[in-house]
Amino acid sequence: MQDLTLVMAQLDPLVGDIPGNADRAIEAVREARIEHGADIVVFPELYLSGYPPEDLLLRPSMETRLREARARMAAKVARDVLVVIGYPGRREGSTYNLAGLLYNGEWLDEYAKQVLPNYQVFDERRYFATGERSLVIDHKGAKLGLLICEDLWDGGPVKAVRDAGAEILITLNASPYHQDKPGERLRLLEQRAAEVNLPVVYVNTIGGQDELVFDGGSACVDGDGRIRVLAPYWQAGLMPVQFVQENSRWVPQEGEIEPQEEPEESLYCALVSGLRDYVNKSGFDGVVLGLSGGIDSALSLAIAVDALGPQRVHAVMMPYRYTADISREDAAEQARLLGVDYQVLPIEPMVDAFMETLADTFAGTERDTTEENLQSRCRGVLLMAISNKKGLMVLTTGNKSEMAVGYATLYGDMVGGFNAIKDVYKSWVYRLARWRNTQSPAIPERVIERPPSAELAPEQKDSDSLPEYDVLDAILMRYIEGDMSAEAIIDTGFDREDVYKVVKLVDRCEYKRRQAPVGVRVTPRGFGRDRRYPIVNGWQPGE
Amino acid sequence: MQDLTLVMAQLDPLVGDIPGNADRAIEAVREARIEHGADIVVFPELYLSGYPPEDLLLRPSMETRLREARARMAAKVARDVLVVIGYPGRREGSTYNLAGLLYNGEWLDEYAKQVLPNYQVFDERRYFATGERSLVIDHKGAKLGLLICEDLWDGGPVKAVRDAGAEILITLNASPYHQDKPGERLRLLEQRAAEVNLPVVYVNTIGGQDELVFDGGSACVDGDGRIRVLAPYWQAGLMPVQFVQENSRWVPQEGEIEPQEEPEESLYCALVSGLRDYVNKSGFDGVVLGLSGGIDSALSLAIAVDALGPQRVHAVMMPYRYTADISREDAAEQARLLGVDYQVLPIEPMVDAFMETLADTFAGTERDTTEENLQSRCRGVLLMAISNKKGLMVLTTGNKSEMAVGYATLYGDMVGGFNAIKDVYKSWVYRLARWRNTQSPAIPERVIERPPSAELAPEQKDSDSLPEYDVLDAILMRYIEGDMSAEAIIDTGFDREDVYKVVKLVDRCEYKRRQAPVGVRVTPRGFGRDRRYPIVNGWQPGE
Repeated sequence: MQDLTLVMAQLDPLVGDIPGNADRAIEAVREARIEHGADIVVFPELYLSGYPPEDLLLRPSMETRLREARARMAAKVARDVLVVIGYPGRREGSTYNLAGLLYNGEWLDEYAKQVLPNYQVFDERRYFATGERSLVIDHKGAKLGLLICEDLWDGGPVKAVRDAGAEILITLNASPYHQDKPGERLRLLEQRAAEVNLPVVYVNTIGGQDELVFDGGSACVDGDGRIRVLAPYWQAGLMPVQFVQENSRWVPQEGEIEPQEEPEESLYCALVSGLRDYVNKSGFDGVVLGLSGGIDSALSLAIAVDALGPQRVHAVMMPYRYTADISREDAAEQARLLGVDYQVLPIEPMVDAFMETLADTFAGTERDTTEENLQSRCRGVLLMAISNKKGLMVLTTGNKSEMAVGYATLYGDMVGGFNAIKDVYKSWVYRLARWRNTQSPAIPERVIERPPSAELAPEQKDSDSLPEYDVLDAILMRYIEGDMSAEAIIDTGFDREDVYKVVKLVDRCEYKRRQAPVGVRVTPRGFGRDRRYPIVNGWQPGE
Repeated sequence: MQDLTLVMAQLDPLVGDIPGNADRAIEAVREARIEHGADIVVFPELYLSGYPPEDLLLRPSMETRLREARARMAAKVARDVLVVIGYPGRREGSTYNLAGLLYNGEWLDEYAKQVLPNYQVFDERRYFATGERSLVIDHKGAKLGLLICEDLWDGGPVKAVRDAGAEILITLNASPYHQDKPGERLRLLEQRAAEVNLPVVYVNTIGGQDELVFDGGSACVDGDGRIRVLAPYWQAGLMPVQFVQENSRWVPQEGEIEPQEEPEESLYCALVSGLRDYVNKSGFDGVVLGLSGGIDSALSLAIAVDALGPQRVHAVMMPYRYTADISREDAAEQARLLGVDYQVLPIEPMVDAFMETLADTFAGTERDTTEENLQSRCRGVLLMAISNKKGLMVLTTGNKSEMAVGYATLYGDMVGGFNAIKDVYKSWVYRLARWRNTQSPAIPERVIERPPSAELAPEQKDSDSLPEYDVLDAILMRYIEGDMSAEAIIDTGFDREDVYKVVKLVDRCEYKRRQAPVGVRVTPRGFGRDRRYPIVNGWQPGE
């Protein structure tokens, strides 16, 4: 009875750092050999460039750098182990999304991805030509069939590589997270494996890259579609899979199987992971954020502390005459609870200076949102000044419901380098806050219980200008994620006036979203690369 | 001898406004029939949806609205005239970029675009499936072969439709402007017509849509590749082409031929057109901008006045202690010269209020760019307050050289809804300013002659922190438009230190550009949909 040890290298490349990614791959192979006796080590899709490399792929020196990196790998990678690794490559005038095979110092062959996603956040047809052939390689008596990410979702190349004689399917992936994605992905894996009656090894990227976050969850499923190994989510590492030959079939042995996460845990980890990687990969010392006493900044603070530790987080309360006492108390209380640096900077002097300077210009006009925005912008300028002086990134704290309807001030509460909760609907902000408190106290209960308010005018409540958040979110999800028309949403049981109001706001506020900081995408339709809307837009709500 | 009158409808649809675009088409056909006795009226690519409709194409109600609009057109369009018009359409499960043929109340047939651009600003494979067949239609004895935009650039479908028997090629286009594009496009037309020895009618869109601007320049070229009719640039309208049958070939008669524009005029018109359409289509009353006495804001003011008229433009000088007297004088002088509203709002009180509030926080630190950014941000807040109160859009005034190296303050001089000169290199800012003054006095000469300075610190000059602009621009063009590596740029004769400094700045400042307002794209690699770079980016300058 023969066996085979495959190691899934669930690692986090840095986009653009080709030499660094190659060095980390060399080290990972060495470790996989020593720790696990690996016969095969499999890396994620486009590992050497990182995913997505975007228009770096258009630089001619990309190919030069990849050639050098692959030459160094050939010279330095441990012997007697087959390395399967993803990278882009220019071949005969076209660029392909490749999986390369390295063994004993020699690059043996390359497989080119056949199905290129060009929807949602994906733009692969901007860069890549499609591969046209299956690739099966014999290694230590096992016939390994290669696939890359969308090949598996599409299914066509799965059957083709089975027909080409594959006994074990190996798929390299950069499959970004969104809510429910880990479960969907596992069900797909089970289904595909069962369809062709072959085991599938699925290696995913991990970590955050701009708006994308990769959850990992690399897995091996057997030919009956049963999960035999499942690597942890949100954690880089090497995970071995043992194959044993039984009745001339390769059977993966049961190994570690990570339990599935609850929806709240999964989402919360995505936000922590996305923020941590953005801050660390960008080289910031830490973050500064405005703590208002409201739930969005409270949740953002908890996420920041979980991502970076309290000593790298600085919170600033910037009260004005409309700030309630309980807001000041709760902000101070949370800062104490989480052990972060905290300061209070009242904005009266700046707001007054602006209003005096503008007195003549505004003479005879009514008070309107201009004055509200001014408060918000004074806070933004203060945060940016602290950011500039101390090298801390401003963490933006607006949620998806607000971003959708433009309930936020450009250059005010929208300032910042990154927004952990940008793609989280308000109703999920509450769910996450409650869930986080079940782990350890992080957010004062009163922050969760009180009605939300921007506190930019006396006695202001969000519900003065917007429907209640449960209604708002339900309409938004139908309009944004569901692409339903206003009339179709009304037909599912919503108030006509509410629906038209919300839909018009969404359409009109594209200009704000276009200037918003990036943030972790956690839905299938985030406000980033995912949803490309015109700013100048004559589309009217209706059928 | 038979003849045929074709009218090129070089019009400006509003993206998303399908019923409105259809109504304007009905009116245009009526006019073409009455004024020119048109036998055929040709509209641009995707005229009914506007171009580019982006993710509006993913809304199921897009198809509903198009069906209604086409039904209304069938009922209302003038009789005895063939209408050729572009729109997207869902057919048998896929969406296509179509040219539809309407005659006497009946939609006769549809041609589907065969070559879909998916590079630069184009994402057509995100939305469309490729057409697979040529279409030739017989109308009043002439065999018309249809093409859509990229079909012509590619060339393959041109030969195919000739082989299918076409006698006149009709191509519907949404071909966006960039510098030199009008000339390139005409040369392509001449070449393609000569290749197949057939006349080509080329109808282009006109006007601005977000970052894109369409210059028009619709044309007819005869089978020898000679231009016979060339419609004006930057102007919507109907342009007739007379065809006469000679020796059983259709020969276009010489009509109006617009002279080619000088490079400065062409670029200046693009900026005026892009700004005008953004402001008007968005429904703003006008614009407000900060006038600093420097050349960028001076050129932007001239563009704004040319686009909107002086009564819709409001200029604000916001001096601080580092503002030179000549800056104040020149700003006032230009405002007087152009007849715009002008006010002076010193920023001392706000800057002082911020510095006092931050005194403890900044205690023991050195003065750095934080204090410079603060000045810039106080100006940004003032402009936004005026914008909010008066319904004027803030016009941003940073040029491409600054955007490239991040020589601009986020939420400071970068605030605004639109930036007319966003994609104009500094050296072109000077060329445009000089050219504009040859038309009529618009910019005080001293503004053009003095060395550029941000005036954020005593005696500051741009060249203190950046190479001189002619050197900077030459490096930037090689790096951005040319995708050359740092080493390759050095090899063409630039200083190593300059090149590395500039290239690093470009790579690091992606986060700023991501939050910049949109602006008119006038190069083949604008900082918008055109250049998609990661923010977190480990790419290092080098080979």
